[in-house]
Amino acid sequence: MPVPNLRSDVASADDLAQDDGLAAQMAAIGRRARAAGRTLALAPAETKDIALRAVAERLRADRATILRENARDVAAARAAGQGHALIDRLTLDAGRLSAIADAVEKVGALADPVGRQLAAFERPNGLLIERVAVPLGVVGVIFESRPNVTADAGALCLKAGNAAILRAGSDGHRSAVAIAAAMRAGLEAAGLPADAIQIVPTRDRAAVGAMLAGLDGCIDVIVPRGGRGLVERVHAEARVPVFAHLDGLCHLYVAAGADLNMARTILLNSKMRRTGICGAAETLLVDRACAGTHLAPLVSALLEAGCAVRGDATVQGVDPRVTAATEADWRTEYLDAIISARVVDGLDAAIAHIEAYGSHHTDAIVTEDGTQAARFLSEVDSAIVAHNASTQFADGGEFGFGAEIGIATGRMHARGPVGVEQLTTFKYRVHGSGQIRL
Amino acid sequence: MPVPNLRSDVASADDLAQDDGLAAQMAAIGRRARAAGRTLALAPAETKDIALRAVAERLRADRATILRENARDVAAARAAGQGHALIDRLTLDAGRLSAIADAVEKVGALADPVGRQLAAFERPNGLLIERVAVPLGVVGVIFESRPNVTADAGALCLKAGNAAILRAGSDGHRSAVAIAAAMRAGLEAAGLPADAIQIVPTRDRAAVGAMLAGLDGCIDVIVPRGGRGLVERVHAEARVPVFAHLDGLCHLYVAAGADLNMARTILLNSKMRRTGICGAAETLLVDRACAGTHLAPLVSALLEAGCAVRGDATVQGVDPRVTAATEADWRTEYLDAIISARVVDGLDAAIAHIEAYGSHHTDAIVTEDGTQAARFLSEVDSAIVAHNASTQFADGGEFGFGAEIGIATGRMHARGPVGVEQLTTFKYRVHGSGQIRL
Repeated sequence: MPVPNLRSDVASADDLAQDDGLAAQMAAIGRRARAAGRTLALAPAETKDIALRAVAERLRADRATILRENARDVAAARAAGQGHALIDRLTLDAGRLSAIADAVEKVGALADPVGRQLAAFERPNGLLIERVAVPLGVVGVIFESRPNVTADAGALCLKAGNAAILRAGSDGHRSAVAIAAAMRAGLEAAGLPADAIQIVPTRDRAAVGAMLAGLDGCIDVIVPRGGRGLVERVHAEARVPVFAHLDGLCHLYVAAGADLNMARTILLNSKMRRTGICGAAETLLVDRACAGTHLAPLVSALLEAGCAVRGDATVQGVDPRVTAATEADWRTEYLDAIISARVVDGLDAAIAHIEAYGSHHTDAIVTEDGTQAARFLSEVDSAIVAHNASTQFADGGEFGFGAEIGIATGRMHARGPVGVEQLTTFKYRVHGSGQIRL
Repeated sequence: MPVPNLRSDVASADDLAQDDGLAAQMAAIGRRARAAGRTLALAPAETKDIALRAVAERLRADRATILRENARDVAAARAAGQGHALIDRLTLDAGRLSAIADAVEKVGALADPVGRQLAAFERPNGLLIERVAVPLGVVGVIFESRPNVTADAGALCLKAGNAAILRAGSDGHRSAVAIAAAMRAGLEAAGLPADAIQIVPTRDRAAVGAMLAGLDGCIDVIVPRGGRGLVERVHAEARVPVFAHLDGLCHLYVAAGADLNMARTILLNSKMRRTGICGAAETLLVDRACAGTHLAPLVSALLEAGCAVRGDATVQGVDPRVTAATEADWRTEYLDAIISARVVDGLDAAIAHIEAYGSHHTDAIVTEDGTQAARFLSEVDSAIVAHNASTQFADGGEFGFGAEIGIATGRMHARGPVGVEQLTTFKYRVHGSGQIRL
């Protein structure tokens, strides 16, 4: 941002120097990350696990410092008039910090994703060709206020042999620096380069721009962790691949042949277990074939659970508390105790609605009809499609990945929960005995 | 390009109308491709194979038309003063066209990459989670003069359930349209949408820009097929993922413990089998430990085979015909009967050279020392690393993929030869019996 200055020539010279300073600083971070990544890529599984245990210990040992820095962040956020939700996400206490350290240890205990043989084939000429998992390289993580992201994302990147460049939001900057310091000490204790985890030291928003440009080829993928505004900016500006989801507009389709009790249980869980997560259902589709028996009890259950229902004419007809859904409702990710609901004419209409309004994140069908279920699972083009299960299973932990750095709705490389395996790529190793190509 | 016109207001209105026309035309192509892709994604393997056989038959049946259109392209290219190499790449004859049809049939005979179960795991709560291969969606292929690319790329996309938008270079435009017409007829004969294969109908270069911008989310990946200029533009401008390689600066490292005969055979094949392909070796690294015995015979063999050698002082010392290599030589992909050569101090120096100057495409080591080989295969960060085998095996056909749409040196999704499997992505299918998340 230009500094207001009447002597505009001086101001622009200052700006230039400042921009050059930032550019040089960011470029240096990129180079250090690339170099650290090369070392980490070749680190044995045991060394990485020792490092992650050391990180966890250090997070516990540095508790006083981390909580003090976090308290400064919280005080500054309060003084800046930030809302309750942000303050809550930002605040650490002994219990939360202990949980963060435990999570790092859990990542350490996962199987090493690097070096897995993904495929192997022998060619007629005797060549043995292997496809082997290798780290992605350098992961750039851009996040907002949650202090746990530094530890979680850093640990996942480290486990997968990647260097991480972490850019914390202004509100959580001091907390991120303190947590990263503990992580860097843990890396060094295991003989690994501290620069495998770096926090962007400036709160200048231009640093985000530099990361999105890829730091001269020193960032291989960007993972945004935060609200829609952040993810939108990253998608619009990134010159490197992005693992992210913009929306989690998830549907639950209660099809003909659904067991009512199962549908009700799955619906309440999909919508109400936690309303603020991306796997929460936002739209209920009920098939006309079972609406007569199922619609009223499902709507009642939602209303009784404290969920507002916005429906089409048929849904409004079953309960006066249902308000009218507008076109905008079908496109809205409420992240709240609100659901949109409509009656659809069969499977094709349900799929067409999901295709028109969905976000290709997670969509589920409830039915006892295996043919309908198979068609739904096959034809709905979302990262996760589920039959007779809650949409809230959209989570790396629930998938057994141990932890996730996020959920991706892009089609490339990673799709669905992004765990340590998705933070690797592969290369081909060709083993010969003198073969030449004919 | 603005039309020169003195009445600039009229000219710009015309331009605008023209631009709007192009934008609308490209957007319509994108929408048709997306719709066709949805149908193709669900097409059974048998239907796609019937279509590919019908395409091959049609390419043979339409021989006269295709060769006539190709002759017009060739005549226009000659009239425009294009060089011999381009004319040769552009020219079809009955034999080449027959080979193109055969290649389409071969793609049809490959195993269906769609629907493969890539992973399956049961969770403690009884959920069965599958990772299943699904098509990428819509593939944009931007190529130059080779008419076979329309058929090859179209067939690979079709086999993987993707729609293809093909943009041929001006020189080969008529040939591409004629071949695509045969392919569209083949698709329709199998009951599949002809729009699964579309040729961008305009030679306007702005069409490439529209494709690189992703046609409003209607292109999932871009594959450039052509020279460095094209690939550079695509990398610089693409807003969607790209499968490509910019350079194939491949190294052959003759390490301590290399069998001289094997090294010589692999060297001559890596460099001279075909000098114009991306997997051709461009730099020879000889370890100082075996330079005394191996360097002179290797250099002689190259010179006798008609290869110019540009070397460091030691390499120049073994034969007066060796010229001095400059710094630029280590960075040059000759694609010709020229090689750069230097002596290195051990494995680490070889790896450091490859890291500093290579293009992460294909690099090979020749040695009988298994420990050295294992370190090379592990530490060289290239899409393909080979031990005791020619670098020219960098090819989808040689890997057993049947055919390839190109070779990728990016780290995401596809790396190395891009065959039909790499033209798919995946989704998760979750099979439940009423599970909810706790």
